[in-house]
Amino acid sequence: MYSEIHMPKGFKCAGVSAGIKPSGVKDMALILSEFPATSAGVFTTNQVCAAPVKVCRAHLQHGIARAIVMNSGIANACTGAEGIVAAKDMAAEAAKVIGCEPQEIFVCSTGKIGPQLPLGKIIPGIQTLFDSALGENVNDCAHAMMTTDTRPKVSVAELQIEGKPVKIVGFAKGAGMIEPNMATMLSYITTDAAVEQHALQAALKRAVDQSFNRISIDGDQSTNDTVLALANGASDTRPLNETSHDWGAFEQAMEKVCFELAMMIVHDGEGADKFVTVGVRGAASAADAELAARAVANSMLNKTAWAGTYPDWGRIMDSIGYSKAKVVEERVDIFYDDTQAVAAGCRSAVAQEDLIKVVSQTDFAININLHLGEGEAVVYTCNCTEEYVRINY
Amino acid sequence: MYSEIHMPKGFKCAGVSAGIKPSGVKDMALILSEFPATSAGVFTTNQVCAAPVKVCRAHLQHGIARAIVMNSGIANACTGAEGIVAAKDMAAEAAKVIGCEPQEIFVCSTGKIGPQLPLGKIIPGIQTLFDSALGENVNDCAHAMMTTDTRPKVSVAELQIEGKPVKIVGFAKGAGMIEPNMATMLSYITTDAAVEQHALQAALKRAVDQSFNRISIDGDQSTNDTVLALANGASDTRPLNETSHDWGAFEQAMEKVCFELAMMIVHDGEGADKFVTVGVRGAASAADAELAARAVANSMLNKTAWAGTYPDWGRIMDSIGYSKAKVVEERVDIFYDDTQAVAAGCRSAVAQEDLIKVVSQTDFAININLHLGEGEAVVYTCNCTEEYVRINY
Repeated sequence: MYSEIHMPKGFKCAGVSAGIKPSGVKDMALILSEFPATSAGVFTTNQVCAAPVKVCRAHLQHGIARAIVMNSGIANACTGAEGIVAAKDMAAEAAKVIGCEPQEIFVCSTGKIGPQLPLGKIIPGIQTLFDSALGENVNDCAHAMMTTDTRPKVSVAELQIEGKPVKIVGFAKGAGMIEPNMATMLSYITTDAAVEQHALQAALKRAVDQSFNRISIDGDQSTNDTVLALANGASDTRPLNETSHDWGAFEQAMEKVCFELAMMIVHDGEGADKFVTVGVRGAASAADAELAARAVANSMLNKTAWAGTYPDWGRIMDSIGYSKAKVVEERVDIFYDDTQAVAAGCRSAVAQEDLIKVVSQTDFAININLHLGEGEAVVYTCNCTEEYVRINY
Repeated sequence: MYSEIHMPKGFKCAGVSAGIKPSGVKDMALILSEFPATSAGVFTTNQVCAAPVKVCRAHLQHGIARAIVMNSGIANACTGAEGIVAAKDMAAEAAKVIGCEPQEIFVCSTGKIGPQLPLGKIIPGIQTLFDSALGENVNDCAHAMMTTDTRPKVSVAELQIEGKPVKIVGFAKGAGMIEPNMATMLSYITTDAAVEQHALQAALKRAVDQSFNRISIDGDQSTNDTVLALANGASDTRPLNETSHDWGAFEQAMEKVCFELAMMIVHDGEGADKFVTVGVRGAASAADAELAARAVANSMLNKTAWAGTYPDWGRIMDSIGYSKAKVVEERVDIFYDDTQAVAAGCRSAVAQEDLIKVVSQTDFAININLHLGEGEAVVYTCNCTEEYVRINY
C-alpha cells in the first residue's frame, strides 16, 4: 500500500496546501535530501517548454542537488521572461530555507498553461513545507503532485548493494496529455544508493525509454514533462557506475520503479477504464514496430472501439496501414490476447463472440505480427470514453 | 438545394436499397455516362487498401470509363483474394448490364472492414439500379452513398467553355475516419466538359490537394478513400487541356466543387457541432506550416476544449510545440478569429470573455503566426464531443 511507503534513508518529503488551487487541496510538494545527492534528469522534447523545465535543465549541469520543490495548479508555461524569473525565485527561496545553493534545487510546475506563478502563495508555501510538514511517509507528497489524477502514484524497490540494503522510491503524476516522450507527467526517483552522476543519468534515460516513453493516453505531448532522479548515498555504499558489480541490479530496480509508475499512469488515464497493451513483432525494424504500435495505440477509432467492447480489427488494420511502418497487408496476423482475429490480412475463422470476450476485459493485449522481419515494440495505452471528453471540456 | 440538382448532360444516376444494410435504407448507387468519358482518380495512400481501390487503380489505366457503381454497408477491405474477385465480379456485372468493357467500370465500397461483399445482393442490385432507378436528379444517388453521414453531399458548378454551358456535379460521402489524404471518403466528380485524360488527372489531383487533403476530423486515414472524375464531353466542346483558353476556368470550377464537398464533410464530422479553420502563417516553410496546422487540428485536447467552449490557447501552444514544425516559443502569436490570445508566446492582455465569445460560435478560426518565414497553410477541422465517442462505440 503506497500510504505506508517510507522514503529512502536521508530523504524526507512533504505536501501541503498553499492555496494555489481554489479547492484547497494539497498543491505543493517538497522532496529533500539531507545530504548532497547526485542528480539526473529527462525532460520534454516539446519546443514550447515551461519555465521550470528550462531552470531544471540549467541546474542539472551543477550535478549535485538537495531538493525538488513543485506546485500543481499552474504550469508556469508560456509565461515568458517573467515566468523564468518566477521559477528562479522559487528555487532561490527553497535554497534559502534549506540552506544550499539555488542550483541545488529543482523546481517543477504542473497545471494550467498561461497564468504566471502566484509567488505570493508559493514563497510562503515553501516555508510551510519545510517547517511543519517534512516526514518520511510518501503520502502527502504524492497527493500534492496530483492534478486530474484520481490516485497518487508511488513505487518502491529494495535491493542489496555490496550486501547493504538500498531503496528506490519513485513518485509520478499524470493522467492526460500523455504521449511519446512523456507528457504532462512528472516523476521523481529517489534512492539512498550512491551513484556517479554520469551513470545515474544513463540509468534514468534507459529506464524512461522502457517505461514512460512506452505509454500513450491521448497523443498530446506536454510542455512540462520532467523525470528527476536523486541519489544521496545515505546507504553508505561506494558510488556505483556501469562497471560496478551491482550495477545491473541497480539498473533493473530503477527500471522496475519507472515501469510501475508508467503503468499506474496509464491505468489512471483520463476517463479510461481499460488498459491495453499493443505489441508488434515481425516488423522490418524496431523503429517500424514502434511506429505501427503507436499508430494503433493513438487511433481514436481504436480507443473508442475498445470503450464500446467492439473487437473492430479492421480499424487496427487501417491504423497500421497508415502508419509509416512498412506493412504488407497479406502477411498481417492480429490477435486479441491469444485469440486470432486476422490471419494473413483477412478475418480468421474465430467467432466474433470469442473476440468480444477478450475486449470485455479491463486489461487485454492487441498482438500484431507483421511477418516482415525481427522488429519488436510494445506500447501501453487505454481506451477513450465519453468521460475523457467531459474531463477535457 | 441539393435535391433539385440535376446531373451534367449525358449523365444519369441512381440509388436503391439492395438489402446490404439491415435497416433497409438505400445502399447502392450508380453514376452512368451515356458516352465514353475520360477519367481520373485519386486514392488512399494507406498501405492496407480495399479491393475496390485496387480494381479502380487498374481500371484507371484504361483511360475511358462509362460508370461508377458503389455500395455502402460493407467496405470490401481486408478481404484478400476473394475480395478482389468480388470487386471484379461487381465491375463485370455492371459492364454486362450497361454494355461496355469491365475496365470501363469503377467500383467502390464503404462500410465495415472485414466481411466479404454480399454478391447475392449486389449483383441483382446492379440490375435494379440500371432498370428502374436511373434519372437525372442527384437525390437518390447521394443518399445511397451515406454511412454515418447525417446528410447527402452534392456540389455543382456551371461555367462557359468556348461560350457553351458546361456543368460540374460532385458527390461526396464521409464523416468519420477523415484525415490527411482523405479517409473513408468517396467523391465522384462528373462533368459534360470534354477533357483530355492527362489534364483531367492533373486538375483532379490539384483540386483534391486544396480540398479533401486539407480537412481532418479524427486523424484516422481509411482503406477505401477514392475520388473519381468523369468527363464525357456531352457539352460538345473541344477536349480541354492545360493549354486551352478556358482551362483556368475549368480548374477553378473543379476546385470549387471539391472544396465545397470537403467543407460539407467537415461540417458533418461525426458528433461535431463546431467548424474550425486552423490557419498558420509565418512558418519557416509551407511544409512546416502544414505540420503545425495539422498538429493543432488533430489534438484531442484542442478538439475537446472547443467542444467545451474553452479558449485554451495553452493547448494550442503545446501542440505546435510538439509538431515537427520549427517553433520559437517567444515569437508565436495566436488569434481566435481576430482576437489575439497569445502575443510573443505569452498571454495577451485580451479578456478571457472575449476569447470565450469567439469559441462560442459554431464556426471560428484559430490563426497562428510563427514569425519565422513565409510558409502558410490552412486545415479545416471540427470539435470532438462525447457524441463522437458514442458513434464509434
